[in-house]
Amino acid sequence: MMDPAARPARLGIVGGGQLARMMTQAATRLGLPVTVLDTDPACPAAAAGAVVITGRSDDLEALRRLADACDVVTLDHERVPIGHLRTLEAEGHTVAPGSTAAEMAVDKLVARRRLAAAGYPVPRFAAADDAADLERFGNDHGWPIVVKAARGGYDGRGVVVVPDATGTPDAARLGPSMVVEEHVDFDAEVSMVVARRRGGEVATYPLAWTVQRDGMCDELVVPAPVPPVVERRATDLATALADDIGLVGVMAVELFVVGHEVVVNELATRPHNSAHHTIEANETSQFEQHVRAVLDLPLGSTASRSAAAAMCNVVARSASDDPRSRLAAALAVPGAHPHLYGKDPRPGRKVGHVTALADSPDQARSIARRARSCFEADLIEADLIEAGR
Amino acid sequence: MMDPAARPARLGIVGGGQLARMMTQAATRLGLPVTVLDTDPACPAAAAGAVVITGRSDDLEALRRLADACDVVTLDHERVPIGHLRTLEAEGHTVAPGSTAAEMAVDKLVARRRLAAAGYPVPRFAAADDAADLERFGNDHGWPIVVKAARGGYDGRGVVVVPDATGTPDAARLGPSMVVEEHVDFDAEVSMVVARRRGGEVATYPLAWTVQRDGMCDELVVPAPVPPVVERRATDLATALADDIGLVGVMAVELFVVGHEVVVNELATRPHNSAHHTIEANETSQFEQHVRAVLDLPLGSTASRSAAAAMCNVVARSASDDPRSRLAAALAVPGAHPHLYGKDPRPGRKVGHVTALADSPDQARSIARRARSCFEADLIEADLIEAGR
Repeated sequence: MMDPAARPARLGIVGGGQLARMMTQAATRLGLPVTVLDTDPACPAAAAGAVVITGRSDDLEALRRLADACDVVTLDHERVPIGHLRTLEAEGHTVAPGSTAAEMAVDKLVARRRLAAAGYPVPRFAAADDAADLERFGNDHGWPIVVKAARGGYDGRGVVVVPDATGTPDAARLGPSMVVEEHVDFDAEVSMVVARRRGGEVATYPLAWTVQRDGMCDELVVPAPVPPVVERRATDLATALADDIGLVGVMAVELFVVGHEVVVNELATRPHNSAHHTIEANETSQFEQHVRAVLDLPLGSTASRSAAAAMCNVVARSASDDPRSRLAAALAVPGAHPHLYGKDPRPGRKVGHVTALADSPDQARSIARRARSCFEADLIEADLIEAGR
Repeated sequence: MMDPAARPARLGIVGGGQLARMMTQAATRLGLPVTVLDTDPACPAAAAGAVVITGRSDDLEALRRLADACDVVTLDHERVPIGHLRTLEAEGHTVAPGSTAAEMAVDKLVARRRLAAAGYPVPRFAAADDAADLERFGNDHGWPIVVKAARGGYDGRGVVVVPDATGTPDAARLGPSMVVEEHVDFDAEVSMVVARRRGGEVATYPLAWTVQRDGMCDELVVPAPVPPVVERRATDLATALADDIGLVGVMAVELFVVGHEVVVNELATRPHNSAHHTIEANETSQFEQHVRAVLDLPLGSTASRSAAAAMCNVVARSASDDPRSRLAAALAVPGAHPHLYGKDPRPGRKVGHVTALADSPDQARSIARRARSCFEADLIEADLIEAGR
């Protein structure tokens, strides 16, 4: 008779995007099968070997089909109703990070309120439903203000900076449910990634400096150019928060650095763009760590493999200009590790990233940038080719 | 109109075993699609995202279907008739390593003759068809002798050491086409892995010390404990040989070390068990390097990421005892990187491997062994459990 424990644990992921793809690659290396729920049978995770259940992430029946096919359900994105995750849990399924932790990433208002109540440093904020609420907040706390849709935003979508009262009617289109916040005049944006198992085992990664462009992570550099006290505070904060919310899996805590203080900006209770470099730069990648944590396997070492690392995202500029056609040029850059997600190009769509390890942050950044520039066609050249057709 | 160059190059692999699986993982990271030809639609490469064409590797029609679906055809194993590879090439398909290079790995007699003719150091050898041929060779050159089936052997199958003339009738069952060789009294067995592109770009990996058990690679350690002159000779030999045979892809040259000399034992014109550690231990793994080379993309750096590395194979002992059930124990060993191939256990079947990086070869070996021992149930304990059922 076969021991039931001999069957590899089955991982289910809501969403089959590039995060699910990289989780699948990590799971496959460990011999663990993955099933994803996605509307697209040819989603990025499928090409990495995930079995696809075709369906929407807001369809409870589809979520149940995924949960029935797996031992643990985890998330590739936040576009899933928290009520559905609670239902799965009530029906006896294991959801990791867990619905309570996931809600912190799904609903920015819930996150802000819980963080503030527990004494974590957050910007001054308020709930807002309309332009009048926004204007009142700006008048009380000063302009500019930052307005965020409570749910559904990502990669800069769903967030606007409003310089003065004239901008509030436009910003209020993100409503009805919004968070309005003071605009933090930060010295740097950084990301602390933490992993936690059910029993409490925790591991943190070295702090990463993230450089945003158009609200999207554009570059990251490790080690972050901050005083040691900042890295320590970020580590302590993320560790305490992971415990407080009963996190199971990986969480990215995006922080503003102001002097020697850190202030929580955003949370993601899943692998995150700000730790893609860990595939090459750390002994255990965030993707393998997430797989280990959600399947309740021992966490791996997060030790760095090099003095410094950098990552640049590869973003498509148009539907006709495919960065994949320039892979050879990127591979020719010594020290660059290009990753492509198998996604067709669309303007502004993340289709890959490049990681570089080096002896210094500047050197790593320069290598990653050089490789990324290989993927990006000169716009003028592309326009000329386009015009000639 | 879409630029045809924008379409990612399509890699085809004859065979969908663990080598194809790890090639597929490397290709997927670069956004490159993979199709394999295998009799088993659920072969190890399938779980990593390869599309499977179901068919036999000795069926020309099946090989043609693979070639038609791909830009380049490469190999996971040597169980493919060289004539079929020549036919594909004649029909305009690109086969990498190329049929001439592949023949060196497929046919041990061809390899020995070509190597000897070109002046490479090989053991004294002869072609043999029957017991009389074997006995004559032993009497002329001394006992013991080594007898190999010219084709079809792997992992110790198809090779026997014959101590004296009484053993020749048994050994002759490997015939009719055999290679008989002197038994080399070596100081160590080592492996040099080299990659070469069509245009001549070549990259070599650091020399690995391979420890065999039952004719199968059991452990490997890098750096190999040999004088620098041996590593230099191995590097020069593999580089020259890659050029001579017009290699395209990765080749492992297994060598005997005798004093300060090296003697060629076996060749494999594909990624090889003796370089599995390169996934973690080197900037570019042998699998990514092979993908780059056969698709004519720039080769990556082979620089080591640590002072030392070691690898142990995980071999199943019985059909009922599945190493996968002990993954958690292996993951708990600090510094161990377990890999499982998604293969059901059968006695003597390689189902995975463990890699460890460390500051010294002994330390790396100790970590890899400890993790491997976690996968291997104590046989007595397993027998007791079995008896109790």
